[in-house]
Amino acid sequence: MLKIAVLGCGRIGRMHAENIAAHPRSTLAGVFDVHRPSAEDVGKNLGVRVFDSAEAVFSSKDIEAVLIATSTPTHADFIERAVAAGKPILCEKPIDLSLARVQQCAETIGMTKVPIMLGFVRRFDPGHRAARDAVRAGDIGDLHQVVITSRDPGMPPAGYAEVSGGIFRDMTIHDFDMARFMLDEEVTEVSAIGSRLVDPALMQRLNDYDTVTVVLKTASGKQCIINNSRQAVYGYDQRLEALGTKGMVVSENRRPNMTTFHHADSTGKGAPLLNFFIDRYAEAFMAEIGAFVDAIEAGKPPEVGFDDGHRALILAEASIKSAAENRTVKTNEIG
Amino acid sequence: MLKIAVLGCGRIGRMHAENIAAHPRSTLAGVFDVHRPSAEDVGKNLGVRVFDSAEAVFSSKDIEAVLIATSTPTHADFIERAVAAGKPILCEKPIDLSLARVQQCAETIGMTKVPIMLGFVRRFDPGHRAARDAVRAGDIGDLHQVVITSRDPGMPPAGYAEVSGGIFRDMTIHDFDMARFMLDEEVTEVSAIGSRLVDPALMQRLNDYDTVTVVLKTASGKQCIINNSRQAVYGYDQRLEALGTKGMVVSENRRPNMTTFHHADSTGKGAPLLNFFIDRYAEAFMAEIGAFVDAIEAGKPPEVGFDDGHRALILAEASIKSAAENRTVKTNEIG
Amino acid sequence: MLKIAVLGCGRIGRMHAENIAAHPRSTLAGVFDVHRPSAEDVGKNLGVRVFDSAEAVFSSKDIEAVLIATSTPTHADFIERAVAAGKPILCEKPIDLSLARVQQCAETIGMTKVPIMLGFVRRFDPGHRAARDAVRAGDIGDLHQVVITSRDPGMPPAGYAEVSGGIFRDMTIHDFDMARFMLDEEVTEVSAIGSRLVDPALMQRLNDYDTVTVVLKTASGKQCIINNSRQAVYGYDQRLEALGTKGMVVSENRRPNMTTFHHADSTGKGAPLLNFFIDRYAEAFMAEIGAFVDAIEAGKPPEVGFDDGHRALILAEASIKSAAENRTVKTNEIG
Amino acid sequence: MLKIAVLGCGRIGRMHAENIAAHPRSTLAGVFDVHRPSAEDVGKNLGVRVFDSAEAVFSSKDIEAVLIATSTPTHADFIERAVAAGKPILCEKPIDLSLARVQQCAETIGMTKVPIMLGFVRRFDPGHRAARDAVRAGDIGDLHQVVITSRDPGMPPAGYAEVSGGIFRDMTIHDFDMARFMLDEEVTEVSAIGSRLVDPALMQRLNDYDTVTVVLKTASGKQCIINNSRQAVYGYDQRLEALGTKGMVVSENRRPNMTTFHHADSTGKGAPLLNFFIDRYAEAFMAEIGAFVDAIEAGKPPEVGFDDGHRALILAEASIKSAAENRTVKTNEIG
Repeated sequence: MLKIAVLGCGRIGRMHAENIAAHPRSTLAGVFDVHRPSAEDVGKNLGVRVFDSAEAVFSSKDIEAVLIATSTPTHADFIERAVAAGKPILCEKPIDLSLARVQQCAETIGMTKVPIMLGFVRRFDPGHRAARDAVRAGDIGDLHQVVITSRDPGMPPAGYAEVSGGIFRDMTIHDFDMARFMLDEEVTEVSAIGSRLVDPALMQRLNDYDTVTVVLKTASGKQCIINNSRQAVYGYDQRLEALGTKGMVVSENRRPNMTTFHHADSTGKGAPLLNFFIDRYAEAFMAEIGAFVDAIEAGKPPEVGFDDGHRALILAEASIKSAAENRTVKTNEIG
Repeated sequence: MLKIAVLGCGRIGRMHAENIAAHPRSTLAGVFDVHRPSAEDVGKNLGVRVFDSAEAVFSSKDIEAVLIATSTPTHADFIERAVAAGKPILCEKPIDLSLARVQQCAETIGMTKVPIMLGFVRRFDPGHRAARDAVRAGDIGDLHQVVITSRDPGMPPAGYAEVSGGIFRDMTIHDFDMARFMLDEEVTEVSAIGSRLVDPALMQRLNDYDTVTVVLKTASGKQCIINNSRQAVYGYDQRLEALGTKGMVVSENRRPNMTTFHHADSTGKGAPLLNFFIDRYAEAFMAEIGAFVDAIEAGKPPEVGFDDGHRALILAEASIKSAAENRTVKTNEIG
Repeated sequence: MLKIAVLGCGRIGRMHAENIAAHPRSTLAGVFDVHRPSAEDVGKNLGVRVFDSAEAVFSSKDIEAVLIATSTPTHADFIERAVAAGKPILCEKPIDLSLARVQQCAETIGMTKVPIMLGFVRRFDPGHRAARDAVRAGDIGDLHQVVITSRDPGMPPAGYAEVSGGIFRDMTIHDFDMARFMLDEEVTEVSAIGSRLVDPALMQRLNDYDTVTVVLKTASGKQCIINNSRQAVYGYDQRLEALGTKGMVVSENRRPNMTTFHHADSTGKGAPLLNFFIDRYAEAFMAEIGAFVDAIEAGKPPEVGFDDGHRALILAEASIKSAAENRTVKTNEIG
Repeated sequence: MLKIAVLGCGRIGRMHAENIAAHPRSTLAGVFDVHRPSAEDVGKNLGVRVFDSAEAVFSSKDIEAVLIATSTPTHADFIERAVAAGKPILCEKPIDLSLARVQQCAETIGMTKVPIMLGFVRRFDPGHRAARDAVRAGDIGDLHQVVITSRDPGMPPAGYAEVSGGIFRDMTIHDFDMARFMLDEEVTEVSAIGSRLVDPALMQRLNDYDTVTVVLKTASGKQCIINNSRQAVYGYDQRLEALGTKGMVVSENRRPNMTTFHHADSTGKGAPLLNFFIDRYAEAFMAEIGAFVDAIEAGKPPEVGFDDGHRALILAEASIKSAAENRTVKTNEIG
């Protein structure tokens, strides 16, 4: 039973705390939030200790590992402090919105052996993982093309767009990691285009996009297409497919049930897709905790680490540059 | 090129005439209908001879085979006359509504070597046939259960129910043949129930049902469930599945296209099913002509013959008796 | 938070204990098992009290309700004792294998106001419930036919068949309840047939069947077809469909993920169905706890009660009689 | 009945000849091929006149329209000659591989009122058309993204690649037209990448690609993603989807039947996709003839005309330039 403390008791931290408490091989050993009432609420519900400060968590002998689910600007600091305290880390993505800060953090933690896992949760989705495993096992032969469809049900809450770092750093970042997960070869070229179609006025003001397409290419010529939209009214659209010399594997969308309706004017009508990322990836969030515990217990590096967070951010930077300059950007121009 | 004449130029005869004309190995060599304008219309459209009488067809040296698509009460007569004339026959189902007449016809034609094929068209549907072929090839191991769902889009035209012989002889007859096609072992026991739900007043008046379930059993214990309704507003519902020791095969419904719609309130919405039996089984009707030509040219008995029509009618009679007497009826009580 | 004790710490009792512990509105307040090490194991894992006897549970002031997951022959006794103790009950199906014992139990508990809920878990499956809700809401118009496909992945463990009471009382019992759930009108006639195809020798010895079809009919003529097999190698096959005057609703099977494979010889290949009933109905088991808590907290009778268990057993008895006598059995011949 | 002659009796010309003969509102009035035996074979099979020369076709009073299915380099010439002869034209794509030749042809025919229809057959596929019609009808609100997946089952026959003009002019050309069909707004920017993965040696030699991704953008910001591969072993992969503010519409792949297989190791396994473009688009090719006849009879310009062929070629040229220069190319740089 790995004793884990959760830093950050917002929506996602609270979910992680519940998962840690429910997981058969982890124990929720404490929570912390700068907004103390949030931490107290979680602590009371789950019957665990509420820490007064992050420092108290890092210095506690009762805490064997930490899950960082605080606001993005604090991630790199907390990673550095947890590394200094020798506590294994599961940190929500992204490491930071600034590539420079990520690189500085990388230098600070250096060659540390403290395990650091990044919360790219989609890697742990049973469907996506089955697709990846099939590709690795040679089931579709040599991989040629990956297509990732990733669309949010709707625009994020007001105010979020201002601090998110833009669609490529905030939303596509998950797809960049998924692309790397599927391709199993580093991306060398990035072509991105962006449009302002869902909320043109806001996007114009923020110099951001709400509808983007990114095409990635590896040195050997493998292609990955990512298409994103901030608005898919039919639900949280999360699909991927991989084409190879021997076939194709597809991870399809998920509905809350498998019930279909058949009427005089239509057949096969089902429920909208699972709408909320915490529902859609519920199994994945729980499996992520398991993978973290596995890595710590086995003394092996976590499957998705600091470097994966760094590389995904490089792809985001390359996309921003590509969309701005209307050209293909090589990743070695960035990082 | 087999020269075939079509007797009966109603809706289904007309369709057969067009298929024979279009089939690469058959020629439409003439048409006949007691209602001469119908025959003339088809003859003109397809550029073929219009015969004055059925007798003229049977005695014509230009006619190598006949397709009988006249009204049901004439089928047995025409079969007898075509056999006497030595013309191979493709006859629409049923042979006759009266089991006695069918047995008399069987005696009349005796051990004739003139090929007789019954128009149980569903055997030639690519989906159903792929299912049957898989079963025969051992793909699902030993067969245990067959489920046939067969529902008409809506009640037949006014007047039809009065002369159809009732739902078991008119509609379920196709499913009885499909059951025999799939089971590959004769049915020995029949349990049927009927309800009056779609048009209770009419069904009451005719002592018929519009909603029936029939359960068939073979000597070895294989089961086949047939469910019929006169009304499926979502289209012509034609499915079958077969369960065996090594798996299941399912022949699903068909829509006119594979387009689906995804909105805020539903996903996966497609078009209603193909509604009209001639559209649903268009490929099957054409394949049926091919199978008939194949059998004649190869000098082999057609895959579905007079005896199959006879046995399907026995199952209809057993169902009528079972529903009336609320008990399982053994087929050897009937024929 | 409703304080619930679990009686019986076998596979299903253990699962219920975990669900009660995890449910946000219930607390696991203790466990009991005649085989004390089983209870201790669960007690230790979940950190709860282990009771020495069922009586200690019933007399404890700390226990507000009980979940009975002991062996079938003890259910009726425990129901009677819990009623006497005034503890609300959630009891696994069946009440008893003997209809006489169920009737005696009904008399014993009389007009008690202690809430009794029967564990017909499939009613709480999101897919099946969405289908039922649609029917009740008039979405498919007047209901005509229900088809329930319910097949186990494989034969139960050796020894189980000897004590299960036979396929109709043990396996079809769930489908009888589902039929009643969907039909919303009592069944008046039952026609059943059974075959021995999966394990003929065992079935012969036990005078039982492994492959059955049951057709139910209500007074108004609504039909329900149930098909069961003890062996579906492709997984736990749990489907239902309902046909009405305005359409059809179908609750389809569930796979562990939505990943499909496409190769030179086939397309659309997915994983086998969820194989184990606890996985297939995981959400339903949790929702069942919620429904129990809801009923107790609201002071309303549970949605599925003692009488539902009684009536399902009557349908099982009628099926046994129908299969033995090769005739339709009226339910008023039984209970 | 429109009397149509077919020029070119290769595989596709032969298919068109059969469709014209079978179509209820057209007559096959003659065929021609520079390789006379090919024309004679078709003429004999379908019982129609074989012309000695294209000129004889153009000057014949018995011919009301021509279908041009000759080799690509002859298309523009035959278009010019048919226009001069006043015969309405249905011409297989492309007009020519050279943009200059297409522009010259456009000048030659000038403002002719002779109807010219281009054979972009996919516009007539029932599934794709249902998707387009839904978009036009506002079913998905304002259109944001179109995704076209278009993959051949395997590399074209040896020798074809050398004369095809390259993947963008030969294969993607269909998708460019489909993009324009769906977007309903002209494309202004093109970004393309190409890889050599299926047959790297051949592609290297021809300076061509076998795996490409093209991203198109309109002035208002609508995006269209096309992904092509010369090899999809699971069959001819032809899908499209359109995302808008109110939903998504998808036109899915087609299998030869709807039969699925369910075994211990997998469920839902179906046949490979229809493999051959003539089978996949069989209904579309027939509908195309109908659309041509409709336009001529109604005296209206065909739905897809010379200009559509011209514009698709501009998108091909822009893609070639974009892939070569690693940058977004504006269409007004090309044509």
